[in-house]
Amino acid sequence: MSAITAIGGLNVKKSIGSRTIVFPTPTWVVGTYDHEGKPNAMTAAWGGICCSKPPCVYVSLRKATYTHGNIMRKRAFTINVPSEKHVMEADYFGIYSGKDVDKFSVSGLTPVQSSLVDAPYVGEFPLILECKVLHVIEIGLHTQFIGEIIDVKADISVLDANELPDIIKVKPILFDTGNRRYFGIGSYLGKAFSAGKEVQSNQYQLKLLSRKTIQEVHLQGI
Amino acid sequence: MSAITAIGGLNVKKSIGSRTIVFPTPTWVVGTYDHEGKPNAMTAAWGGICCSKPPCVYVSLRKATYTHGNIMRKRAFTINVPSEKHVMEADYFGIYSGKDVDKFSVSGLTPVQSSLVDAPYVGEFPLILECKVLHVIEIGLHTQFIGEIIDVKADISVLDANELPDIIKVKPILFDTGNRRYFGIGSYLGKAFSAGKEVQSNQYQLKLLSRKTIQEVHLQGI
Repeated sequence: MSAITAIGGLNVKKSIGSRTIVFPTPTWVVGTYDHEGKPNAMTAAWGGICCSKPPCVYVSLRKATYTHGNIMRKRAFTINVPSEKHVMEADYFGIYSGKDVDKFSVSGLTPVQSSLVDAPYVGEFPLILECKVLHVIEIGLHTQFIGEIIDVKADISVLDANELPDIIKVKPILFDTGNRRYFGIGSYLGKAFSAGKEVQSNQYQLKLLSRKTIQEVHLQGI
Repeated sequence: MSAITAIGGLNVKKSIGSRTIVFPTPTWVVGTYDHEGKPNAMTAAWGGICCSKPPCVYVSLRKATYTHGNIMRKRAFTINVPSEKHVMEADYFGIYSGKDVDKFSVSGLTPVQSSLVDAPYVGEFPLILECKVLHVIEIGLHTQFIGEIIDVKADISVLDANELPDIIKVKPILFDTGNRRYFGIGSYLGKAFSAGKEVQSNQYQLKLLSRKTIQEVHLQGI
């Protein structure tokens, strides 16, 4: 079967086609005002940080969404990071359209007007980014809105000793692009820009060498 | 203190400035060839899906990186999703530059030539995306490379009953933008496009109503 690739001693890989399956992707809620000033919230998984200076985040939205029109008009949005306990409301924001319902009112969550950008944020969510649109990129079905992060706000209750939002306290939600499920975050795995130095250690390199030797012995049929 | 915002009964929020702190962001390894055909791997957290049709993923990279030049030249890259057990190698790929070292050789991981795009993928990683560059967006310190996903390949061992990559088996790594740490994925929280329907239920709406009544009673000082 041509769609299956096996190389040497590596795992066998299967082609699953040209599609948007990758892990992890976020579960973020985008806050905007409509043309009448009604606050709206919409859930998106197509989002991420895309520049450090200026600090920028994007969301990609279909033109058919209510939020797309709102951002085009107001040139501003907020990114709201829900905590695990708000998974139901986060999913609700992704199912229905602000064209038809007042999602803040139905969910009981609180739209708070940003003092920095022309958009509301979700008062109950622990971490929010207030953004002004810098670029609008038409890719295909989705339009990418790149926003400059004017400010990040976090609940005092989720800050750590360094006054930074603690991912363990925020409890962000992941979207599973494969089977369309939500997951929380798990165990601590290591320190970035540090754990990898071990690869150059004698211990790691010796292990590598012994593995190679075993492979060669196998190849020679000894 | 003006940087602290309190609204009604909501949590108190603190401004932490214009910076790239948000959760979750991925830990992905970008595979490229240099001008001499040497395979290189570099870790990036500024990445995400940005369009469904055509299926597109991006990574944002500083111009100073070796991978930036490689993608500009080859117009192709792979996104490689490491599993928890490869956190050390993933971090290693993010610390050192392909200008100075052969990172595949030092780490012992296997560069496999894609048959679809002019880039290598990491044979040991369970999930990979093969991409051709569609757009190059200069944002600021970072250049955003938007790639069309030509194919997704997954280890057979991580597929579920629907022949889709199972996030629980892939065990992707999250990058914590606050304190620069790595985390795994955690518990199942709910089904997307389903859990949120509960918000419209009588039970949820009755709870909301009773909460509002209690707040009003408090406000009236009864």
